[in-house]
Amino acid sequence: MAEGEQGVKKEEEEGQVVNPWEVSAGKGGIDYDKLVDQFGCQRLDAALVDRVARLTGRPPHVFLRRGLFFAHRDFSDILDLYEKGEKFYLYTGRGPSSEALHLGHLIPFMFTKYLQEAFKVPLVIQLTDDEKFYWKNLTVEESKRLAHENAKDIIACGFDVDRTFIFTDFGYVGGAFYENMAKVARCVTYNKAVGIFGFSPEDHIGKCSFPPVQAVPSFPSSFPHLFPGKDQLRCLIPCAIDQDPYFRMTRDVAPRIGYQKPSLIESRFFPALQGENTKMSASDANSAIYVTDSTKEIKTKVNKYAFSGGQDSIELHRKLGANLDVDVPIKYLNFFLEDDDELEHIKKEYKEGRMLTGEVKQRLIAVLSELVARHQRARAQVTDEMVDAFMAVRPLPKMFS
Amino acid sequence: MAEGEQGVKKEEEEGQVVNPWEVSAGKGGIDYDKLVDQFGCQRLDAALVDRVARLTGRPPHVFLRRGLFFAHRDFSDILDLYEKGEKFYLYTGRGPSSEALHLGHLIPFMFTKYLQEAFKVPLVIQLTDDEKFYWKNLTVEESKRLAHENAKDIIACGFDVDRTFIFTDFGYVGGAFYENMAKVARCVTYNKAVGIFGFSPEDHIGKCSFPPVQAVPSFPSSFPHLFPGKDQLRCLIPCAIDQDPYFRMTRDVAPRIGYQKPSLIESRFFPALQGENTKMSASDANSAIYVTDSTKEIKTKVNKYAFSGGQDSIELHRKLGANLDVDVPIKYLNFFLEDDDELEHIKKEYKEGRMLTGEVKQRLIAVLSELVARHQRARAQVTDEMVDAFMAVRPLPKMFS
Repeated sequence: MAEGEQGVKKEEEEGQVVNPWEVSAGKGGIDYDKLVDQFGCQRLDAALVDRVARLTGRPPHVFLRRGLFFAHRDFSDILDLYEKGEKFYLYTGRGPSSEALHLGHLIPFMFTKYLQEAFKVPLVIQLTDDEKFYWKNLTVEESKRLAHENAKDIIACGFDVDRTFIFTDFGYVGGAFYENMAKVARCVTYNKAVGIFGFSPEDHIGKCSFPPVQAVPSFPSSFPHLFPGKDQLRCLIPCAIDQDPYFRMTRDVAPRIGYQKPSLIESRFFPALQGENTKMSASDANSAIYVTDSTKEIKTKVNKYAFSGGQDSIELHRKLGANLDVDVPIKYLNFFLEDDDELEHIKKEYKEGRMLTGEVKQRLIAVLSELVARHQRARAQVTDEMVDAFMAVRPLPKMFS
Repeated sequence: MAEGEQGVKKEEEEGQVVNPWEVSAGKGGIDYDKLVDQFGCQRLDAALVDRVARLTGRPPHVFLRRGLFFAHRDFSDILDLYEKGEKFYLYTGRGPSSEALHLGHLIPFMFTKYLQEAFKVPLVIQLTDDEKFYWKNLTVEESKRLAHENAKDIIACGFDVDRTFIFTDFGYVGGAFYENMAKVARCVTYNKAVGIFGFSPEDHIGKCSFPPVQAVPSFPSSFPHLFPGKDQLRCLIPCAIDQDPYFRMTRDVAPRIGYQKPSLIESRFFPALQGENTKMSASDANSAIYVTDSTKEIKTKVNKYAFSGGQDSIELHRKLGANLDVDVPIKYLNFFLEDDDELEHIKKEYKEGRMLTGEVKQRLIAVLSELVARHQRARAQVTDEMVDAFMAVRPLPKMFS
């Protein structure tokens, strides 16, 4: 069976919906095990994490060693080749649907930055302004403006301009990229696209035109200014697992048009403050911490909205301890508190009732405030000229060094 | 009812199929009257032809005065505005599916050249190499090569490089053109596209991605190097009537995205040598006269294949005369013999049995041989540099003069 066969319908039957436009959990949160089985991807196990550490000569990223990036497709192939001295390139992206990014949006970029540094490889970042024009009620101009603003937040994550090409679809589609779009489109029937993405016949044709646009950055020939003569260079895509349908389709098509299948490394969703049942929503400001939030706002949101696994009274809490499985502050610390020992300590103390929710939230507020303040300082340094520099269609002579 | 509502199904029920990929007649040839009613376009009457003559100060083109361009959409609006001193631009195109063009392929270009000269207006010519990649079993490279070769034949028709921009989709899609594609795509549901174009769910998604590509040259903002600040400039599209579905769709969408509807002037099909039931087929060399044919080949094809309305024996012919309604040599002369008096004389003599099929064919061979030889001489003068000059993305400062 082709990789793309596991479609939208099956997910719906089983009570959770995960596709690029909708993530909603059944009872008890997203069932990631079921998702891996449904999508047909592979689990990212400890042996693979150890291998990354060994090959890169540095400790694996928090997101990796704590299982937040938890699934993959052929990541081990990339490592096999890397071990033999072959390089690859990274591809990630964002749909620019909002002015400000929330913490969940930062996850793939923080992780991609780590991969870029650890493996010393080039990176392409796609801003799908066309996608947001198709799916949201935005004008072309507004989609493009949001892409430009989002690019600043992405650059603020610390990417190396000598190894990074950022592009928007409205700006870059054309030429070799458009040729590859056509090659992909010719290999995907409408029925197949419906099976993968759940389009309806009353959806506009922009929707079924779009998947090839997100597919083709997986192919080095889409970037003749970066990878001339390197049509077989492998591509690794770090992304949240809701993007998997695009790349199931891409991997299905790739060998039919003479290209390598991209590899993937896929993350869980960063939970909403209210709990794990969905990923955060850009449309509900109280569901998420934004990179534009002040320390005061962070404090209010965490204290007021972060779902607690602690007990209703101090007495009961001291006696029963916290339920870490549903506790949002612990989940957030799991993403952002780098010190493994401290995290383990907090989890133990909290679970056994010696630490109170308020104390855990205090620590989280400190961690997030520092993270957000650091981002805001970096963001303030990003000029329009820097955006232009990252977006210039240019060779990157030092991209593999 | 929107203009696009008259779909493929209705045509099929009535025994003739006319869409951009298939033209097949019911019994007795294409019923053009029915087509005009089905498509919802307007008949191009003598009063409109006279008006063109008056406004341009030159006799109307043979194709116009003999009713070969026979239908239109809002062509009179274009003339109203022209009379008030407002200019417009022309848009025509070709799907480059074959190495050599046949006479039927030349019709829109010969007519467009006349319009360009008569009205002194700019012209954009789209070569849909992406369409042919989608619909024919061609590689991207072969589609692009055919587009380049076809461009030479088009240039050989005598277009003015100071008023003409030729582009291929693989070369030009992107930027403002791609933004307009997205705007059109967002206004057309898949169901609507199926109604207009007859796509099946087992067709690949390239097919339903394509109509916006052919739609957007109708909008001046797709050519920012030609028409900056002239977003409301009107567009006139000369084409064969099988292209009407694209522009029904385009006209339906235009006001919803703030653009003018393009106007159309539409031709009958140039008949195959074997008769009027279809347009010529690029895949059957004996169904058509090619611009690459030698005089000898033209002579053989006309004598051997051109369907005659004459009688079976000379005696019978002298008595009954020819049936001009089905006679292909007369139809061809109707397109290409410019002298109205001579044509009328031939038709009368032939119809009344005084002229024989062989004699009419002799005259046709002379006319076609001269036309084709002239084309071949012009084609031989067209260099790759000239193709580059026509295709350069550049302003055309003298395009309205």
